[in-house]
Amino acid sequence: MANITKKVSWSSRGDEPAPAGEGTPLLNGAGGAARSYSRQFSGSGIFQIGRLSTVDLEEDPAPEESAISRPKEIPHNEKLLSLKYESLDYDNSENQLFLEEERRMSYMGFRCLEISRWVVCALIGILTGLIACFIDIVVENLAGLKYKVIKENIEKFTEAGGLSISLILWAFLNSVIVMMGAIIVAFFEPIAAGSGIPQIKCYLNGVKIPRVVRLKTLVVKVCGVICSVAGGLAVGKVGELLHHALSNGLMSSLVDVGSLTPLSQQIFEYFRRDTEKRDFVSAGAAAGVSAAFGAPVGGVLFSLEEGASFWNQMLTWRIFFASMISTFTLNFFLSIYHNKTGELSNPGLINFGRFDSDSVEYNLYEIPLFICMGALGGLLGALFNVLNYWLTIFRIRYIHRPCLQVMEAMLVAAVTATVSFAMIYFSDDCQPLGEDQAENYPLQLFCADGEYNSMATAFFNTPERSVRSLFHNPPGSYNPPTLGVFTLTYFFLACWTYGLTVSAGVFIPSLLIGAAWGRLFGIMLAHITPYGSYHDTSKHSPPSSGGIVRMTLSLTVILVEATGNVTYGFPIMLVLMTAKIVGDYFVEGLYDIHIKLQSVPFLHWEAPATSHALTAREVMSSPVTCFNRVEKVGTIVDVLSNTSTNHNGFPVVTRVMDDDEPGKICGLILRSQLIVLLKHKVFVERTRSRLNQRKLQLKDFRDAYPRFPPIQSIHVSQDERECMMDLTEFMNPTPYTVTQETSLPRVFKLFRALGLRHLVVVDSENRVVGLVTRKDLARYHLGKHGLEELQLAQT
Amino acid sequence: MANITKKVSWSSRGDEPAPAGEGTPLLNGAGGAARSYSRQFSGSGIFQIGRLSTVDLEEDPAPEESAISRPKEIPHNEKLLSLKYESLDYDNSENQLFLEEERRMSYMGFRCLEISRWVVCALIGILTGLIACFIDIVVENLAGLKYKVIKENIEKFTEAGGLSISLILWAFLNSVIVMMGAIIVAFFEPIAAGSGIPQIKCYLNGVKIPRVVRLKTLVVKVCGVICSVAGGLAVGKVGELLHHALSNGLMSSLVDVGSLTPLSQQIFEYFRRDTEKRDFVSAGAAAGVSAAFGAPVGGVLFSLEEGASFWNQMLTWRIFFASMISTFTLNFFLSIYHNKTGELSNPGLINFGRFDSDSVEYNLYEIPLFICMGALGGLLGALFNVLNYWLTIFRIRYIHRPCLQVMEAMLVAAVTATVSFAMIYFSDDCQPLGEDQAENYPLQLFCADGEYNSMATAFFNTPERSVRSLFHNPPGSYNPPTLGVFTLTYFFLACWTYGLTVSAGVFIPSLLIGAAWGRLFGIMLAHITPYGSYHDTSKHSPPSSGGIVRMTLSLTVILVEATGNVTYGFPIMLVLMTAKIVGDYFVEGLYDIHIKLQSVPFLHWEAPATSHALTAREVMSSPVTCFNRVEKVGTIVDVLSNTSTNHNGFPVVTRVMDDDEPGKICGLILRSQLIVLLKHKVFVERTRSRLNQRKLQLKDFRDAYPRFPPIQSIHVSQDERECMMDLTEFMNPTPYTVTQETSLPRVFKLFRALGLRHLVVVDSENRVVGLVTRKDLARYHLGKHGLEELQLAQT
Repeated sequence: MANITKKVSWSSRGDEPAPAGEGTPLLNGAGGAARSYSRQFSGSGIFQIGRLSTVDLEEDPAPEESAISRPKEIPHNEKLLSLKYESLDYDNSENQLFLEEERRMSYMGFRCLEISRWVVCALIGILTGLIACFIDIVVENLAGLKYKVIKENIEKFTEAGGLSISLILWAFLNSVIVMMGAIIVAFFEPIAAGSGIPQIKCYLNGVKIPRVVRLKTLVVKVCGVICSVAGGLAVGKVGELLHHALSNGLMSSLVDVGSLTPLSQQIFEYFRRDTEKRDFVSAGAAAGVSAAFGAPVGGVLFSLEEGASFWNQMLTWRIFFASMISTFTLNFFLSIYHNKTGELSNPGLINFGRFDSDSVEYNLYEIPLFICMGALGGLLGALFNVLNYWLTIFRIRYIHRPCLQVMEAMLVAAVTATVSFAMIYFSDDCQPLGEDQAENYPLQLFCADGEYNSMATAFFNTPERSVRSLFHNPPGSYNPPTLGVFTLTYFFLACWTYGLTVSAGVFIPSLLIGAAWGRLFGIMLAHITPYGSYHDTSKHSPPSSGGIVRMTLSLTVILVEATGNVTYGFPIMLVLMTAKIVGDYFVEGLYDIHIKLQSVPFLHWEAPATSHALTAREVMSSPVTCFNRVEKVGTIVDVLSNTSTNHNGFPVVTRVMDDDEPGKICGLILRSQLIVLLKHKVFVERTRSRLNQRKLQLKDFRDAYPRFPPIQSIHVSQDERECMMDLTEFMNPTPYTVTQETSLPRVFKLFRALGLRHLVVVDSENRVVGLVTRKDLARYHLGKHGLEELQLAQT
Repeated sequence: MANITKKVSWSSRGDEPAPAGEGTPLLNGAGGAARSYSRQFSGSGIFQIGRLSTVDLEEDPAPEESAISRPKEIPHNEKLLSLKYESLDYDNSENQLFLEEERRMSYMGFRCLEISRWVVCALIGILTGLIACFIDIVVENLAGLKYKVIKENIEKFTEAGGLSISLILWAFLNSVIVMMGAIIVAFFEPIAAGSGIPQIKCYLNGVKIPRVVRLKTLVVKVCGVICSVAGGLAVGKVGELLHHALSNGLMSSLVDVGSLTPLSQQIFEYFRRDTEKRDFVSAGAAAGVSAAFGAPVGGVLFSLEEGASFWNQMLTWRIFFASMISTFTLNFFLSIYHNKTGELSNPGLINFGRFDSDSVEYNLYEIPLFICMGALGGLLGALFNVLNYWLTIFRIRYIHRPCLQVMEAMLVAAVTATVSFAMIYFSDDCQPLGEDQAENYPLQLFCADGEYNSMATAFFNTPERSVRSLFHNPPGSYNPPTLGVFTLTYFFLACWTYGLTVSAGVFIPSLLIGAAWGRLFGIMLAHITPYGSYHDTSKHSPPSSGGIVRMTLSLTVILVEATGNVTYGFPIMLVLMTAKIVGDYFVEGLYDIHIKLQSVPFLHWEAPATSHALTAREVMSSPVTCFNRVEKVGTIVDVLSNTSTNHNGFPVVTRVMDDDEPGKICGLILRSQLIVLLKHKVFVERTRSRLNQRKLQLKDFRDAYPRFPPIQSIHVSQDERECMMDLTEFMNPTPYTVTQETSLPRVFKLFRALGLRHLVVVDSENRVVGLVTRKDLARYHLGKHGLEELQLAQT
């Protein structure tokens, strides 16, 4: 053990590769990045941004100043990849401790584990259902109260003539409620902003989004959503919320609570790793969708479409189970709330009401119409996305302070109220009050007695109810100008709203736009063709939503399940598919745009088609920081403490005689594992006697999961620095490796299919020559002009 | 290049590992295998078979004789794995030719490829729809004709008293029709027998089932199904057929036809590999289900549940597209056939009719009932499976000659007719003829005028129509004894029928049993509880089917889509899930049983839970036959011609000085590639001048796909034997490797996730020490007493 103190000399990056500071112009090139935005809009097309090369940035005259003045702009560039995101460890580190534990476990032990997985899924389902129920009831009551107050006020002032006071009241109420929501989001948990679908997509893709899986996020999200929906914003109540917050926060708290009770401790402790957590998050996402739309199958499909690379049949069934339970729980408690205890036929939160089978039959001649609708929907969606993209860029540049964000949210709320009011005020579309009282708050306004203002059904209501009215109100309930104006206004309002610092989604608004527009289309058709308008009223709703969001399969199933009618499945598919194809031609889906703008290293399903020319040699990052099998504590502490290279994984190599030559790979160890080892001082002295006698258990690693302490919090004395650490027992002795000649698609396939975090590149002698991480692969993407390479940047 | 002629001395198996003949007792131990059957039934439980160890077999007194007398028995043992099945090559061999081609291809080229994939999927959809339409129309007419003749005959003899003549006529007609179907299946294409789902499951799992993807199989299957359904057997018309024959045969013929037309040649040629073929087969399977049940989403889910390990989003959409097209085509042509051109609302072949939303609402108190039904269904399913398992074993042992098989099929047809006739004859359950004429052939028999025999609605009809009658006939249409007797009889008939040498599935029969039994259950409930029987009529149908087949998710969606009612989704799920859990406790699903009995090396989703103790070292087969990078032609020919070791993949190694030591891995080459090389005589002389000047193209390999000539057909002269062959350009230079210490679950995960065929095991110096193939992994499975190891056997 003479040479053991030898310092490993070839140092480089681990999971977080680029050394910060010097050498990476982007880090102090905020001005450059900012400039690239402006250039981009003067370019030939929306996304034809000039490639952000190093040269571009070095031209920047005063990078330092601009970096100081606008510190928040840098990461939000779609031509950059942020280094702050880590990968999840979907690949178990099969070290000796792990294998010993697995081997000790009996068949019965595995059965128990399996059963407890089902139990956890059931709990996730129940809690999701309960929370959905809670949100529904609170929103309903809060919005009901608000609309009642405003309605009374309007009625009071309609005759008296002071309707501007009603307007101010309405705008004020909206602003105050939205402000509360925005404040908790902006100041307490910014990650809870937005719809949550981008986050869950990233998580299922394997990216660790900080603070997403927290109980705090869940609480903020729930409150935020209640406020933004009750505040009258053009947002969806549940569509998006549930996917994300519930699943994640719930699962995390479940596992954490589970480890508190001694009885369940043993079982739940086993689940404290990314592999199991991912499965529960999938289940949570499915349960969320299921509760939101009463669509258990749609929920499962959603989980599948986003995270299918790690799929397996048992998991499917568990996810399905969670979905069923959550729908059931929601229905059960809502049936109690509505005093119809036990009547379970009423599906999810968003109930579009039943469609009569006869009314939705369709005929061959309608197929071209569906395709037209789909194409138009795709165009509309693309327009929405482009507008929202510009808006988001604007927000990133100018509205990044929390108080500004809150003010913007309040402004939107007030404008929404004002616009709605103006719409209602100037509308002269009066309709007779029906028998069935479909409208909760029929506004008479200037209409004759026994009539109501039909514009108000659309604006003076929560979006869910508006959708239902648009689907089901009898023919003639709306006249074309009303619908046209409504569609247009709502389109811009929804576009402005998405991306605000409030918790809310875009699903329901897009559906509402689609429904209004579809009805308009139907009426127009009825004017042109000899067919009546009735059967066209509810047929053309989905395109807009498909154009914006682009989830064909799960969206179809969700819509089919939510409308309760299967006959209508085929047209929905057709429309959605056309919308997707047309929309994709112009611009990506809304969620993908937002993921790109966050510079998340998102791995797509396959490597770019034209990337066969690249091999692991070009893709990998090298040189690599390696450790010896028995390494000096001081070296390890130094490497871990080096803030400029925030590595997360280190190949372990066997000693070689020659210092210059890389060592042969014999394992892989993670930063988190090293930190636990340092914390427990698992050192051997030069004489090889153990300093710490207690043998480290897998439990010690699990207890630290998922919040490993930073290296700075661990004190290592000067004496200890001279000790050695034997990594043999703790490293993963069989990491996946590829040779340098492996083509990028092959590396990609391996990486993606197995959900890896680090992939070691070796030469023919099994010597470590590089390391491939998520960012190395996500860098390459197919632009309009062939393969492009994104830049990496420290945030 | 002096040492180049050195013969590689460590010889062993490739894809087909065990050397035949000596050393493997099972190969001449047929008596042993047979004996193990008898032991198995005297054992403690149905599946608690004493482990078939080598010792057991060596005790056998006269293995040779029994092997000769009963040669067909050996492979059909669930404790054996057959060596005759190969893996599909889901992993592209990324050799130099391949990479060059990919690099040459422009971005537009890839776009064209993508578009032509969509075109192929559309064609698959259209053809599937057309064939489904054809089957439907032919069966309807043929069965209609048959029932009309018999009905007239019965009516003639009811008064005259010679009803035995009617019986004979009926039995005779059935037998003749079934005989035709059985003959073409038994003599022309035995693989077309059965439902086809086990085959498609295996194919999607990655097992190459010989002759499954052929046009001939398709034709036989279509004719066979028409005969068996028209012949009155207790089988389903389309449920299963379509999955299989259409997808496979169609795709294959499509690609083959495509390569005939010069225009499309270039495009379709690219698809001549297993990776692309698998995608088209998935699409075909989905399109088949979609057409059969009018359930496009169910079809996609079916494909997913069976083959999800190779999933990706673009593929999902293509599959979805194919499903949509096939439903559409079917509907369109059926609407023309039924003179309602253009009315497309009518879904798939199996139309259960619309359920009125109101009649299928359910309440909390029904949940326990659903669970009960599910549990009973699971039990019933398990019983069905066990009975069928015994029957299959019996068939394997005694009915393996084609003429015997045809006779058995005729017998079953005659018995079915007789039993049906007896049932109708002895039934005194008369019902008044409804207005709506739901019955196509209402038999009056001994009933009063204006009434019909209700037993006849169930037996005197194709199964699809019977299911519809059971679902929809008004309350009181059947009395309990009728239903009870029908359920019982049909249960045994269906059980006897499944596994006959006719093309037919078990899906519809199981649904029919479920429907009859569910209705019985409903009536009984109505007697016990104060609730009316009406709303219970159609609620309890799916459990039996779920108990037998066990595909929870896709089955739910299929049923929901086929019944056209979403409200009812949750109870269906609940029932199916319970049935699955209960059924799984006793015995596997029917398809899994049949796959096991065929000794197919089927890879499950995960490695057995308790297999962490095993490493690649124990699992791999070694020693391995390797080739040098530049190998003597004679050596290659000898190795390939060695019939005892029918290897399919060979690691290519770099030369080493010492003969005893294994070489360093530098590539992997397949038998098929070597055969193409030999055929084109790509030899270099000792002087390294090429004999054959033409550079081999990837096209040459594709042209040979998928029916590579056997090595015997290639003549290599003695001179040529002395030449060398340079494999560098053709081998896959970057095969996936693992080290010897890798645990079995880790090896399994890599193998399964990437769809590998050969996985090379290397030591720390990158020297080849073993090879892992599908059979090495499929050998280990979890029995009742922990991990068991199956034996490998040559067929």
